[in-house]
Amino acid sequence: MNIRERIEHLRAEMRKESIEAFIIFSADPHMSEYLPEPWKERVWITGFTGSAGLTVITLDRAGLWTDGRYYTQAEIELKDSGVELFKDGLEGTPSYTDWIIQETSVQAAIAVNALTTSHQNWNQLKIKLDQNQRILVDKPLLNRVWHQRPTALPQPVFHQSIQYSGKSTVDKISDVRKQMQAQKANLHIISTLDDIAWILNLRGSDVACNPVFLSYLIITTQEVILFVDKNKLEHSAKDSLREADVEVKPYEHFFDFLSQIKDYSILLSSDCNQAIFNTLPLSNKLVVAPTPSHLLKAVKNETELQGFRKVMVKDGVAMVKFLYWLTHQVGKEKLNEFSIGERLDEFRAQNEHFIGVSFGSIIGYQGNGAIIHYSAKKETCSSVHDKGSILIDSGGQYLEGTSDITRTLALGEVSESFKRDYTLVLKGHIRLALAKFPQGTCGAHLDSLARLALWEEGKDYNHGTGHGVGCFLNVHEGPQNIRKDLNPQVLIPGMVISNEPGYYVVGKYGIRHENLVAVRLWKKTEWNNFYEFETLTLCPFFKDSILKELLSQEEINWLNEYHQTCKRKLEPYLSGDIQKWFTALVSPL
Amino acid sequence: MNIRERIEHLRAEMRKESIEAFIIFSADPHMSEYLPEPWKERVWITGFTGSAGLTVITLDRAGLWTDGRYYTQAEIELKDSGVELFKDGLEGTPSYTDWIIQETSVQAAIAVNALTTSHQNWNQLKIKLDQNQRILVDKPLLNRVWHQRPTALPQPVFHQSIQYSGKSTVDKISDVRKQMQAQKANLHIISTLDDIAWILNLRGSDVACNPVFLSYLIITTQEVILFVDKNKLEHSAKDSLREADVEVKPYEHFFDFLSQIKDYSILLSSDCNQAIFNTLPLSNKLVVAPTPSHLLKAVKNETELQGFRKVMVKDGVAMVKFLYWLTHQVGKEKLNEFSIGERLDEFRAQNEHFIGVSFGSIIGYQGNGAIIHYSAKKETCSSVHDKGSILIDSGGQYLEGTSDITRTLALGEVSESFKRDYTLVLKGHIRLALAKFPQGTCGAHLDSLARLALWEEGKDYNHGTGHGVGCFLNVHEGPQNIRKDLNPQVLIPGMVISNEPGYYVVGKYGIRHENLVAVRLWKKTEWNNFYEFETLTLCPFFKDSILKELLSQEEINWLNEYHQTCKRKLEPYLSGDIQKWFTALVSPL
Repeated sequence: MNIRERIEHLRAEMRKESIEAFIIFSADPHMSEYLPEPWKERVWITGFTGSAGLTVITLDRAGLWTDGRYYTQAEIELKDSGVELFKDGLEGTPSYTDWIIQETSVQAAIAVNALTTSHQNWNQLKIKLDQNQRILVDKPLLNRVWHQRPTALPQPVFHQSIQYSGKSTVDKISDVRKQMQAQKANLHIISTLDDIAWILNLRGSDVACNPVFLSYLIITTQEVILFVDKNKLEHSAKDSLREADVEVKPYEHFFDFLSQIKDYSILLSSDCNQAIFNTLPLSNKLVVAPTPSHLLKAVKNETELQGFRKVMVKDGVAMVKFLYWLTHQVGKEKLNEFSIGERLDEFRAQNEHFIGVSFGSIIGYQGNGAIIHYSAKKETCSSVHDKGSILIDSGGQYLEGTSDITRTLALGEVSESFKRDYTLVLKGHIRLALAKFPQGTCGAHLDSLARLALWEEGKDYNHGTGHGVGCFLNVHEGPQNIRKDLNPQVLIPGMVISNEPGYYVVGKYGIRHENLVAVRLWKKTEWNNFYEFETLTLCPFFKDSILKELLSQEEINWLNEYHQTCKRKLEPYLSGDIQKWFTALVSPL
Repeated sequence: MNIRERIEHLRAEMRKESIEAFIIFSADPHMSEYLPEPWKERVWITGFTGSAGLTVITLDRAGLWTDGRYYTQAEIELKDSGVELFKDGLEGTPSYTDWIIQETSVQAAIAVNALTTSHQNWNQLKIKLDQNQRILVDKPLLNRVWHQRPTALPQPVFHQSIQYSGKSTVDKISDVRKQMQAQKANLHIISTLDDIAWILNLRGSDVACNPVFLSYLIITTQEVILFVDKNKLEHSAKDSLREADVEVKPYEHFFDFLSQIKDYSILLSSDCNQAIFNTLPLSNKLVVAPTPSHLLKAVKNETELQGFRKVMVKDGVAMVKFLYWLTHQVGKEKLNEFSIGERLDEFRAQNEHFIGVSFGSIIGYQGNGAIIHYSAKKETCSSVHDKGSILIDSGGQYLEGTSDITRTLALGEVSESFKRDYTLVLKGHIRLALAKFPQGTCGAHLDSLARLALWEEGKDYNHGTGHGVGCFLNVHEGPQNIRKDLNPQVLIPGMVISNEPGYYVVGKYGIRHENLVAVRLWKKTEWNNFYEFETLTLCPFFKDSILKELLSQEEINWLNEYHQTCKRKLEPYLSGDIQKWFTALVSPL
């Protein structure tokens, strides 16, 4: 079946049900950032493979909405599909809801699959459609058309030992129950996979790059029930679930179970899919609030922080070896962005306890470095030569923790403006790294520190400065971040977060300097508890791209001390020419 | 009638109506920051004169809630009144709502005067009382007890000529109507006095320090109706209202008029008093949203900015003359905080177009400077001697604009720690003054710039960094500010705002450096429009309190350039010994 045929099959089903528009979100029932294969519904129906996009099929038109990162790719992939591209973010592009209202009649039924729609999203959509006399209905019509969804092989789920998690499952469940009690709830539904993995100290690999497994979790004051494919559970997982008194039921039984829940006060997040809300009997009282484990998980314990520190040594050694290889082979052998990425993975894979990459690497040579979510394809990527610059954003999952690092480097001659921008971004990185701030400070209060040096030249970057990072879990996690968005979550000691300002010149180069940092107590004063960042990531920056005169003495001191730390921690694992090269790299500026 | 008798009279009325608790807010029907005399209900019933406080009278108890600024004053003023003091902000102090629930029975009626309760406040209170089976009712019982409310003499209302306002009333009404249209409203109720004064280009003096007049305004697509005491209107006001086709009705007719409004779509703010909401017939549709003039007023036009600049020259000259007098007389004549304030007013009053002070001056000597909202009383204030430091926060209303300035100075020997803190606060002031930032930046993004130097020593201050300032209007206005609070209002060129970091050592000294600044376009780049602050206030800082080694070269340059600007603008109006003293003050650091 080609795309046009798929869409026509869907329309036939829509006609049977008198549905005038069908919306397909890029989502799975767990609101995962990266979709498991069986849930790539939007890819299947349109052929567009970008990570962000939303499709609406009406009886005679079809539209795909995506953002600036994907305009070009979408144009190519949608060619001859009959699907029209709507460029989100461009003036004049109608919102998909406005377009639906325009293309359908009053009282028309508009369908979605409630499994792939969060409660929050459903509510917003419903309000808008209600206001315009359209009726939102839950009809998973794609199931009748997409007959051969890929069924992933059961991926093993294993126990993460307390030597890495630092806290037993029993204790975590106890913490969650305290929060349930505070919210006056006696039953709690958890659908986010990383929360479930964290609470149960289990890890899997059902989602690319994220060590999680498809499941739902229900915690009551007395019971804990995990809905998961039992065949996936390794012995270590089964044992640990038994010890923590967790009952296991089949994943498919979850909604049946929900429909039997009566007279409970149920705590659940508005991120839960709407099908959960539609299934719960009305005799229950709902407490819609953030999943408590979301914040509990974000505040790492000392064992987890120790894990991160160990990871950073291994990951730093791999990065240094890789960077040595790259800087010494470029211009000598035939390299391209894709092959460089493969080589980087090989260096990382040599590390003990390495599980896999924590996200698809971004290897952007010259102008490709300016494409913020660039993903080099084997067939179409750029060759890499010994001139200009390259941006390398990558990370690994290890038993002890997760890494995420970006380095930008000159592979040969670079312009003065590149060096200037490299230094300005570094100033921002260092100013954020140096920040001392009182308890109660949010990421939005600190975001400007990373941007000010750029702002002073009329420059900026269109992405956040920092995201939360899981411990051998999702490389992007909440609730904290460092962004312009006014996120009210305060920073708390133990939170791990990225420090990654950047600067991008379209068609020329991209620059980003990313380390992971942990919030820690700096000192208590009569005024407040004051916090600072401990930089976790260990890998040198490149002095040959720094314009020293742009740095303050304090910034130079930070850099030299950081390089001394890299030297102390990484040098024991380096030898020969690599060590010599590294020693020069970390010598004082 | 003493306080106990007043409360007993009120209780007699409460019994008649079967009301178990009566709440008295510190508010008037216009939610003014400073209360007109007839609305000082809480002062009348308790005797407590502080600016913040809330009273609850039950049938057998009476409580006053106030914050840390007023604990001592409240204890003194409430002595023998039978009113118990509840210290807001201390652990263990019940909220007034919790206390009401504790002191009243299920299904009890709890009364307020809806005229003195914003819709927003009413809603919050009602939800809490509903949850606890108490019934909120609107009963202005105090009217039956307080028979001789002070009736203010009609204060004249005059036209503010376009040479100061920069925009005609007709144009302002047209701007408001555009916003009404965007909100799909055909009638708009405005109850905030500064909004009414701004739209109509009228000024009055019904409220201390705020050049406003008691009134309501209704704008429909066709009509504009001002509810005001006609006797107050000077010829200039009458003429300008006639030209703008504004109908005038008596202030007292407003609620009658409201009760006749039918089938309109009404735009009004949740800051409107609840009596307005209670009076409007149900056939109307309500659009509850911020009053559009709130933001329109905050963005000053070029005429208003020119007005501010003129004011700053006059106000700066008065400040310099005053500071010369103070520094040369201290230790020679008998001075106290109150007499210094009187003298400051005299210097300001010599200025052309001076109308009055823009708020009650804060003159805090030594430890009193650390009391953030200190108000020196004639009888109880401190003597001032030629040692230690003094904090002086004051401002004026002029036909052209409004000033608000704080200077802190050593009157004799001061400690090294004072100088260090003086310099740290100045660093914060300068860093904020130097900021360049893109369109879309909020105050919360910049607040940390003013605090970072303090944070780096584990210090902070417990107040906002900046508030909006009206143009010959309220010295505190929204919607923008620079605070830790995550206020989503972005900064827009034309907004005037204070830059006033501080630091306070209890019992020793307070430091605050306050200038007014205006947001202006710095430059447009390929990235965005970038903004900066134009510092408006003109008055030197004190180099003898600065530890130069703590300032960066950029900060020293800012200070020297600022002092050069002060010199250029103020020196023409100074002569003799004052000029000599001033010249030394503004010489380079």
